[in-house]
Amino acid sequence: MDHRESTVGQAGEDAVLTEVMEIVAPFNARRGAHLLLGPGADDAALLVPRPGSQLVLTTDTMSQDQDFRPCWWSGPEQLAAGAFEPPDEYPMEVGTKAAAQNLSDISAMGAQPTALLISLTLPRTMPLTWVADFYRGVVRACEQPGAQRCVIAGGDLGRGDVVSVTITAVGELAAGSAGLRRDAAAPGDTLAVCGPLGRAAAGLALLEESSGPEGGTAISPQQQELFTHHEELFGVCMRAQTRPAPPLEAGPAALAAGGRGGMDISDGLLRDAARLARASGVDIHLDDDVLAEEARTLEPVAAYLGRPPEQARHQALTWVMGGGEEYALLGTFPAGVVLPEGFRRIGEVREKADGVPRVVTGHVVSNVGWSSL
Amino acid sequence: MDHRESTVGQAGEDAVLTEVMEIVAPFNARRGAHLLLGPGADDAALLVPRPGSQLVLTTDTMSQDQDFRPCWWSGPEQLAAGAFEPPDEYPMEVGTKAAAQNLSDISAMGAQPTALLISLTLPRTMPLTWVADFYRGVVRACEQPGAQRCVIAGGDLGRGDVVSVTITAVGELAAGSAGLRRDAAAPGDTLAVCGPLGRAAAGLALLEESSGPEGGTAISPQQQELFTHHEELFGVCMRAQTRPAPPLEAGPAALAAGGRGGMDISDGLLRDAARLARASGVDIHLDDDVLAEEARTLEPVAAYLGRPPEQARHQALTWVMGGGEEYALLGTFPAGVVLPEGFRRIGEVREKADGVPRVVTGHVVSNVGWSSL
Repeated sequence: MDHRESTVGQAGEDAVLTEVMEIVAPFNARRGAHLLLGPGADDAALLVPRPGSQLVLTTDTMSQDQDFRPCWWSGPEQLAAGAFEPPDEYPMEVGTKAAAQNLSDISAMGAQPTALLISLTLPRTMPLTWVADFYRGVVRACEQPGAQRCVIAGGDLGRGDVVSVTITAVGELAAGSAGLRRDAAAPGDTLAVCGPLGRAAAGLALLEESSGPEGGTAISPQQQELFTHHEELFGVCMRAQTRPAPPLEAGPAALAAGGRGGMDISDGLLRDAARLARASGVDIHLDDDVLAEEARTLEPVAAYLGRPPEQARHQALTWVMGGGEEYALLGTFPAGVVLPEGFRRIGEVREKADGVPRVVTGHVVSNVGWSSL
Repeated sequence: MDHRESTVGQAGEDAVLTEVMEIVAPFNARRGAHLLLGPGADDAALLVPRPGSQLVLTTDTMSQDQDFRPCWWSGPEQLAAGAFEPPDEYPMEVGTKAAAQNLSDISAMGAQPTALLISLTLPRTMPLTWVADFYRGVVRACEQPGAQRCVIAGGDLGRGDVVSVTITAVGELAAGSAGLRRDAAAPGDTLAVCGPLGRAAAGLALLEESSGPEGGTAISPQQQELFTHHEELFGVCMRAQTRPAPPLEAGPAALAAGGRGGMDISDGLLRDAARLARASGVDIHLDDDVLAEEARTLEPVAAYLGRPPEQARHQALTWVMGGGEEYALLGTFPAGVVLPEGFRRIGEVREKADGVPRVVTGHVVSNVGWSSL
């Protein structure tokens, strides 16, 4: 049987692990002087942290049909053609996204990721190559700037009806550093962001609309024209959703520059800024003009999805203000601090005007609630 | 609506998290001086390790119908009555087992667990109380001797068709210590074990036989008599499967006593001893008399399951030699070392007799292979 055609169930655990280690072992060897025992070597992995460093830990699960759909992984060409078969790249993208969202949480503390542990559950019918490609995707996420020291320290393989992956990311924060904290934004601070806003949400809308229950509807001549004019933008938005590349250097850079409040935007700017405001006991005033300007760039996506101009503006603003899984980094910086490269000002932190910390904005956007249950 | 009756889907993520934190926050507060930021406080948890310590990491997923069945969680009374409804205790036991198997891997390195990260996926129809009870079970596992410093550092909640839990355990090993290693067994070492052998496998056989597709078959008068005589043993075996309590102090104790080779028995003595032999490049000679003696205590379980005497002996020996999920700790100690409390000698390590490292035993047991895929 062609190796590529055997399933994980046919191959068995040992063969799958061999396949995985062919990718993981050389990857770890290239960067892992701090990894004394890696995956499969013993009961647990053994790492040597930098002397005096603090330990940063986060975990996140991504499940098929809850957090992603295989049919999302199609290029803009397929979008234009109305064709949405999961392509060869899909498992690699799942690996990249699962790793990236955890790496982003480490960066958002101002820390550097040092290790990932990966538990992968998948149907026995998945091809052996799926697992290898998934791990290639994890490796790709770790090759982003800011994750140079991150190794794959351990993992687990199991069987389930759908693909589900849980990644735990481990990071280091220098001794004595408070990190970038939700509770550390102070009145007078500048609110700044590194990374785009709204693109992942716009990309999700494109992917979901085009891969609906009918399996991809044909597109109109108007859509074809918008697509031709904005092909790059559409691709960028879809990739923001399917293959996020969080700015992993931004957290440590913000901390080094004197930033103090901070978090990544995983549930949308409005919700996450509200968390920052609550934890710090402050009001956060958003710069409505700047955000409106950022939204403008996304209007062609809303138009492609059939929204008339006024609605398109509103839709684009909702993506910018409420879009989740964005992995942009929100930071607050004391007045006078020069923002590090990549950050732009989107508001400011003030004393809370009454008893309740708030996010203050003149923009009215649609309900952007989200619950994982 | 009665709080106990609402489901996690009805309650929503925030209410479930509140429920979880009512258990986790006071637990962490009692022991977590090293936990600067715990679950939900920020993008990631922040811990201060002991100065100079090495970091030990492991992860493991446990899924319903793959790794456990709800109907297992019944007491011996229900076994006797042939009734197998999952009782109230079931979610707590799932939490204990999921945590214990990860804590065991940390101990098996000779390390002390310091933190768990818990990702829980469950159907929206599960009662809110299920989640709270699950966390109570995790707390119970951490209250075992040897896990005194372990906190719950973070977690994730998600939706899925069946219950699935991934736990990552973090531990500390003193600076400069090699830990208990698979590759460190040396000729002349005594092979010793801490914790029972075969009980979890015997318990699994009881649970599976009694909770078969028919949902619990009525038991015969002979079975009733065996049950009455051996009720305590049967209960101990079933609990070894449903609520394992690995000897978490054994790993650090082995290391302190001068032990060097070691691992926990998660896939059965024969398979795991073979891994130890291979990694260390040695032969491992098992003490067949000692193991036969240990097996004898489990014969009543085999008899209960309808095996005639000769088969019962063979079955019990297969449990002792091949039973997985045992979480006993295997260690090797240089000659002359006094075994720490709780360890007993079950064999010895020798130079390998020919090119291939082997486990040497006169016992012939049934096929004990296992693949997680």
